[in-house]
Amino acid sequence: MISLRRGFGSGGLFSRTLPDPLQYGTEPVERPSREDDAYWMRLALERAMSACGRSNPNPTVGCVIVKEGRVLAEGATEVHGGRHAERVAIDSVADRSRLRGATLYVTLEPCSHTGRQPPCVDLVESCGFARCVIGLVDPNPLVAGGGLRRLRRAGVELRFGVLRDELIAWHLPFLFWHLASRPLMAAKWAQTLDGQLAYDSGRSQWISGPESRAYTHWLRQKYDAILVGAGTVLADHPALTVRSCQGPHHRQPIRLLFDPNARILSCPEEQWRTLLQRTFTAETPTVLLVDEAALTEARRERLQARGLEQVHLVPLPAGASTVARLYAALEDPLLAERVSRPLHSIMVEGGPRLLSALAEAGLLDLAHVFTAPTIGGGLRYRLGLSAPDGTGLRLHPFAHARLGDDLLTEYLLPSTSKLLEGLDSIPAVMELQEEPACANV
Amino acid sequence: MISLRRGFGSGGLFSRTLPDPLQYGTEPVERPSREDDAYWMRLALERAMSACGRSNPNPTVGCVIVKEGRVLAEGATEVHGGRHAERVAIDSVADRSRLRGATLYVTLEPCSHTGRQPPCVDLVESCGFARCVIGLVDPNPLVAGGGLRRLRRAGVELRFGVLRDELIAWHLPFLFWHLASRPLMAAKWAQTLDGQLAYDSGRSQWISGPESRAYTHWLRQKYDAILVGAGTVLADHPALTVRSCQGPHHRQPIRLLFDPNARILSCPEEQWRTLLQRTFTAETPTVLLVDEAALTEARRERLQARGLEQVHLVPLPAGASTVARLYAALEDPLLAERVSRPLHSIMVEGGPRLLSALAEAGLLDLAHVFTAPTIGGGLRYRLGLSAPDGTGLRLHPFAHARLGDDLLTEYLLPSTSKLLEGLDSIPAVMELQEEPACANV
Repeated sequence: MISLRRGFGSGGLFSRTLPDPLQYGTEPVERPSREDDAYWMRLALERAMSACGRSNPNPTVGCVIVKEGRVLAEGATEVHGGRHAERVAIDSVADRSRLRGATLYVTLEPCSHTGRQPPCVDLVESCGFARCVIGLVDPNPLVAGGGLRRLRRAGVELRFGVLRDELIAWHLPFLFWHLASRPLMAAKWAQTLDGQLAYDSGRSQWISGPESRAYTHWLRQKYDAILVGAGTVLADHPALTVRSCQGPHHRQPIRLLFDPNARILSCPEEQWRTLLQRTFTAETPTVLLVDEAALTEARRERLQARGLEQVHLVPLPAGASTVARLYAALEDPLLAERVSRPLHSIMVEGGPRLLSALAEAGLLDLAHVFTAPTIGGGLRYRLGLSAPDGTGLRLHPFAHARLGDDLLTEYLLPSTSKLLEGLDSIPAVMELQEEPACANV
Repeated sequence: MISLRRGFGSGGLFSRTLPDPLQYGTEPVERPSREDDAYWMRLALERAMSACGRSNPNPTVGCVIVKEGRVLAEGATEVHGGRHAERVAIDSVADRSRLRGATLYVTLEPCSHTGRQPPCVDLVESCGFARCVIGLVDPNPLVAGGGLRRLRRAGVELRFGVLRDELIAWHLPFLFWHLASRPLMAAKWAQTLDGQLAYDSGRSQWISGPESRAYTHWLRQKYDAILVGAGTVLADHPALTVRSCQGPHHRQPIRLLFDPNARILSCPEEQWRTLLQRTFTAETPTVLLVDEAALTEARRERLQARGLEQVHLVPLPAGASTVARLYAALEDPLLAERVSRPLHSIMVEGGPRLLSALAEAGLLDLAHVFTAPTIGGGLRYRLGLSAPDGTGLRLHPFAHARLGDDLLTEYLLPSTSKLLEGLDSIPAVMELQEEPACANV
């Protein structure tokens, strides 16, 4: 079970995710004392946050090197294929002898295998650190405690588990991929207090306030793709891009538009032009997930226009239900190939029918819910389950924060919560926990 | 606009309202330093909380007397007609000369008029305090800054406004009565994340967890009466009493059962016996608000039984709508006479139809909402507005807290929020604010 300290969410520290003019009202988070490892691990997390999304599908790791109560160096993972956080930090110190006796804080275990980069653990071992404080064990089977073991053998004093729950939340998309071997599906919706995702009038109108919307932009850069249904596309013409949040470090997620009946491709010409301007922009690839049978010649033709090279048409495979077919398409490596990007994590931003179908099929793993202080009082645009008797669908709350006048609550599905417990049963971790010299907090 | 510090709600300090076994998970609240007036004012609030509801309709005031960084005395208002908080504190010091030079902290302005007790301000003035730190000005027209003025003239150093918002939340039922000259109507409901107040099955089943239910009991003792509709009575046979919360200081609120069609009086015999055992107990008076026309002889007869002296039948007066008639009955001093208790504040605990009708008629002033981490996914048992288009009914959030797995949010209706601003425009307050020696934080 993960349960976060106040002020932390799956996007990191709430107070660091909003642009300055929206900061007012976010709750202050006390820093632990500088004597406390949590103080420095928090700095390492903040360093990671400054590179949010940059290194996907690699985890966005943060690293801080501390000596005599002062920061000697810091780093965050570079763009995919670039240097890892530890290397960035260590490289920034010209005279490596200064690292001798220092403490390395890193949000995730240093890697012990050669990928696009040589193993970080070799580098870390060579620096003569007195202590290494490691947030989480890397569940990647190629690492899985191997880095910890190596450092332990080299006689480095080790501590792990500092800010465990907060770092699980931060590294969730990466951890989930390795623990579940399938993409993380996160739901995001804004609702009235009584659960309407839009007012009965159906007019395109924001339910939530500017702080919630800025936080949604922040979250988008954590995910590989954003998924919406055709109804949402046709009602809102959303851009689905990262805007108005802290920092220039974002990248744009892929747009996934779920449209089995090809309604988007058959919309009136005027609406189509609006979509071209707002939703099909060249900033990032757009994928239309469509039923082959619905693809008439006229509909296909619309996508032949110049400037639509970034829009990909992907037919839904066969399957038992519509959401099962959607999920099979998302899992298919061919889709990742088409957009030249792995899809390890997907944020579903609506509408209510798509969210409900995914929830009912057990295909949601996480939810970010923004609740506005209004009573809609209507009957439409709600989540619905087809057999709603009994006690409903149970969620595990792990974070909440006030964002402006809205309240953000974050939930794990019970199965996700259980899956994350797997982090504590990685053999190398259990082994180390038995060694008294290796403190696990 | 009131907006509370973390950990405070309209019931006081969240962490002080739950029995020990349920404390786990409630957020810790930092105490400000002992050099800070807020530290001692918080102690005064805790003192008031220890007497929650005891002095209604008098405000439950807390008082602490501090000298050289230590508490000399403390007190809370006694049962209605008894001593006020300041007097309780001062009386507890045998040698009054010790009070000379001390600082008096009190949540509400000392009274300057003679009621059942002589004016506290005379007593306070006679003690030679060096400073008086006063939370709120008493809006009672008989006081309204008169106490502050008197102390000021006597040369006592004055400070007011410390923990202003938190004390407004605590004294809300009392303040509202004097500012609005009508009873405070507070809604309380527990809901699923998607806004169901019960699952579609309709079975009597708790939506919220034990922490939320204990907190509801705590809240009940703050109100003069609890109001529910006939549907809720017949579905749940609720006791509506104060149980399972901190302290033995509670009193039982009056039960108000709104039953225009006299459905309760015509329920099957077996159910009637259950109601006698659970809802019509002698602990506190019960009032049945019934349409005269629905009162057949048979129905009246049910209430002639022995042991039902505490059950009062009150006919609804004429009025434009059913809720207007209900409200007129609640405002009528005759009702207060019948139950020998003023009805200055009423908590409405459901069901959804009654709550919706009151919300729509603009008759709710405040809402305590418990949201459980479940998706009900059904269509029934929701709040509904008859013309739900547009942007819904806007609320002003002023407190939130995690209670177990549930989230409590507290809202003011915008009109209530505006009304409370009236506290700052009491002439004596504005006058004092202009004097530089009298600090208003």
